[in-house]
Amino acid sequence: MKFSDWMSNIQQRTEFALESALPPSNPSPSHVHNAMRYVALGGGKRIRPLLCHATGAIFGVHQELLDIPATATEMIHIYSLVHDDLPCMDDDILRRGKPTCHVAFDEATALLVGDALQALAFQILSARMNEIDAARQLDMMHVLATAAGSRGMVGGQALDLAVVGQKLTIAELEFMHIQKTGALIRAAVLLGAHCGQASAEAIDQLGHFANRIGLLFQIIDDILDTEGSTAVLGKTAGKDALQNKPTYVSLLGTIKAKELAQDMLREAHEALTPFGSRASRLHELADFIVERKS
Amino acid sequence: MKFSDWMSNIQQRTEFALESALPPSNPSPSHVHNAMRYVALGGGKRIRPLLCHATGAIFGVHQELLDIPATATEMIHIYSLVHDDLPCMDDDILRRGKPTCHVAFDEATALLVGDALQALAFQILSARMNEIDAARQLDMMHVLATAAGSRGMVGGQALDLAVVGQKLTIAELEFMHIQKTGALIRAAVLLGAHCGQASAEAIDQLGHFANRIGLLFQIIDDILDTEGSTAVLGKTAGKDALQNKPTYVSLLGTIKAKELAQDMLREAHEALTPFGSRASRLHELADFIVERKS
Repeated sequence: MKFSDWMSNIQQRTEFALESALPPSNPSPSHVHNAMRYVALGGGKRIRPLLCHATGAIFGVHQELLDIPATATEMIHIYSLVHDDLPCMDDDILRRGKPTCHVAFDEATALLVGDALQALAFQILSARMNEIDAARQLDMMHVLATAAGSRGMVGGQALDLAVVGQKLTIAELEFMHIQKTGALIRAAVLLGAHCGQASAEAIDQLGHFANRIGLLFQIIDDILDTEGSTAVLGKTAGKDALQNKPTYVSLLGTIKAKELAQDMLREAHEALTPFGSRASRLHELADFIVERKS
Repeated sequence: MKFSDWMSNIQQRTEFALESALPPSNPSPSHVHNAMRYVALGGGKRIRPLLCHATGAIFGVHQELLDIPATATEMIHIYSLVHDDLPCMDDDILRRGKPTCHVAFDEATALLVGDALQALAFQILSARMNEIDAARQLDMMHVLATAAGSRGMVGGQALDLAVVGQKLTIAELEFMHIQKTGALIRAAVLLGAHCGQASAEAIDQLGHFANRIGLLFQIIDDILDTEGSTAVLGKTAGKDALQNKPTYVSLLGTIKAKELAQDMLREAHEALTPFGSRASRLHELADFIVERKS
């Protein structure tokens, strides 16, 4: 199967899995359930589910099984976007080409939508899976909860707000992004590996790959924020510079940032060497992350 | 041991368990970690941990083991208070006798503190426990995540906002509170029972008890909001009437609300009959919930 077909297939399965896992609109509180569906369905590149599936493919894991951690991880990602767009945070009005949740609904609803999506992620991941040892499944919950917390994604968000207007070193910027974007991307990869009953060594090696991909993703995001248009990005372009946020582009300039991205990409590919051709989807996905336009 | 001594003991252990589970202030992001400690430590009646420990006592469960679900449940409760106090929600400035989180810090920090506490609750509950079967532990995670979600606590919060100024029936008010307060109180009881490897029948019976206690807790809360003082409550008194929220008192009047509380209390005691004297702490706790002044 061509990579683009594989990617469409995973994106469609993820849409379907999200659709099935989300509460229908009608049971109370219907406005929150409507808003949860509004933010979760019909958009997004689904990078984290793609990473989870591509990693599971190394170990020949069934896609039905991978849908569960892929969806849980995507829910954590979506909730973080909803909260990050709130007026007290990044105060943004556009996301995935649509008005943000608090604009389309209201602030209280957006707050509760985020809270409920986080709980739902852990709810679906804790339903017993026959194919996986319960102890292994607990480890998966631990990986996701740790990645989502104050030393992972939320910690990165906090740093992101704290450093506005500051001049960071590359090491400091990297530390922030390892938490903000990297932690959840790493979780997506590790959960796919756990589904495949991966050995501790394989998980360690895939962790190295995920760390490079997380930073790579952020460098490209920073470049796109400078070079992309709002229409193509589906979110407000040029916002980092406007908000005086330190980015790879503001620290290094575009040319050096692109060179750094190429270095990261090479290291990411290298980290997959032990898996040979079984990691072909992860190789393709790494290239896609660099070549994407939004 | 006298009930009051037992209660102090559990409150102290809970404080210690929270203190140990929370990240120290110094690792980054220190302002979020400081704020997490500010909201979680040094206060609160710890009703949910008390319920978890009292239920575990029926089955002779070690307190060390019960500390884990008790702390996780309390973290979910604390995060819900932090978010509920935000300007876009109840907009309150006082909680447990101290300025609320967004007043003492800022809105973005309060938002992230709540998000991080929710993740931390699932993080500590997913660390492998030797004393409990992993499959049973997964069930505990599922109970807590479901109780925290859009058909549990968050759903109740959403309804609570939606019904301001509306005239509800008692049945509608009850439905709202079963979600808003009841879901997490029920989870605290059920997690204690799961730690004791309780049978499905015992869990079912304790569920009945927990449902009565959840409503009882809310009826007393409504009465205290009318009759209590801000100084004793540690939160703004008289707020329900001011915000035109439907309560048991506004629907029934104080006298009938107190009669309803006595009915609920009797039913709660009755639900414990199968457990005989092993449930003595739960009996005492039910009485305490009615007699409390804050």
